[in-house]
Amino acid sequence: MSATYRVTGMTCGGCARSVESAIKAVSADAKVVIDLGKAAVTVDGATEAQVKQAVDEAGFGFEGKA
Amino acid sequence: MSATYRVTGMTCGGCARSVESAIKAVSADAKVVIDLGKAAVTVDGATEAQVKQAVDEAGFGFEGKA
Repeated sequence: MSATYRVTGMTCGGCARSVESAIKAVSADAKVVIDLGKAAVTVDGATEAQVKQAVDEAGFGFEGKA
Repeated sequence: MSATYRVTGMTCGGCARSVESAIKAVSADAKVVIDLGKAAVTVDGATEAQVKQAVDEAGFGFEGKA
């Protein structure tokens, strides 16, 4: 089951790739889709707590479910 | 003692902040200075292995000492 979160501070494709990598570092099998324009990160295969930890450690702003 | 590493894939300030945050997540007291134009990351207070782990997990390219 996937969930979509609002993540602030991503300004380019490198930022988006960084968020995706950070999430996969805490949950290797997660599927991640990022909509940069909407600041939306959709994740399948990781808990909200895992996503929050990954986003925090990567230096972006986790704002909960979108 | 600080060391400078070459890190590829950083294209904006958000990327640079992400690398800094990832390094501080593995070594909280590290001091990090990033020169985006030179793809150079100077770190004081973390080992090369810690920096490599952080950069890898953040989805950027760790290319060793600059």
